[in-house]
Amino acid sequence: MIPEGARKVLKSDALAHFTTLDESGAPYVTLAWVGLDEDQVVIATLADQKKLKNCRRDPRVSLSVATGNRNDFGLDEYLVVYGTAEVTEGGAPELLQELAYTYLGPGVKFPPMPNPPPGYVTRITIDRISGVGPWT
Amino acid sequence: MIPEGARKVLKSDALAHFTTLDESGAPYVTLAWVGLDEDQVVIATLADQKKLKNCRRDPRVSLSVATGNRNDFGLDEYLVVYGTAEVTEGGAPELLQELAYTYLGPGVKFPPMPNPPPGYVTRITIDRISGVGPWT
Repeated sequence: MIPEGARKVLKSDALAHFTTLDESGAPYVTLAWVGLDEDQVVIATLADQKKLKNCRRDPRVSLSVATGNRNDFGLDEYLVVYGTAEVTEGGAPELLQELAYTYLGPGVKFPPMPNPPPGYVTRITIDRISGVGPWT
Repeated sequence: MIPEGARKVLKSDALAHFTTLDESGAPYVTLAWVGLDEDQVVIATLADQKKLKNCRRDPRVSLSVATGNRNDFGLDEYLVVYGTAEVTEGGAPELLQELAYTYLGPGVKFPPMPNPPPGYVTRITIDRISGVGPWT
């Protein structure tokens, strides 16, 4: 379902710009580590941040990732994922540890604390893929 | 009004993730070259793209820019600008040429065509600055 090129970007160490909608319906953006769990994009958060509250109120989100490559026309390659977010409880330290190997490097311990809270995993079901790249 | 560190990011060659709201109120994202004209962020577009139609319908937009730096806590630095967009007619080829010197390099000719259309300049008045960096 997800084109292979897009899957590769979502599994890479490129940071995602994660956009949710705030209480007024305006865009709200944070940078996030992302991973893939089968066909869902997953994000881990230890605290119940504003972006999670936004997802519960309105699950329409986007993720955009610049790959740093340029295509044959000189355009910067990027992936945009539009999806529907569901915030689930627990599992954040385990997912953060897994993502840290990609984003920080092998052998790193993350989160860097002895007893992290269970936190939240946000699971994003992909509705549409866009941007500039082999996936469009 | 704009902190010096944020001004520097907006004048750099770092690409901006530009989020507008589509006709349903969901986020819509494209990558854009951005510049500063005094205290407004400016974006040039030759064609009347969907992002411009979105701005006319609902002017609430965001721009997010990852700088590629990490702060002393190991967090990735990024700038988020929340603002109000106004689409004006004309001036796109001149602004694109100016931004091309930053984004593509000195001496480049852009747009790479003899008679580009006047296009549109989107002017974003900054309402709030966020993210992770010396500006927060």
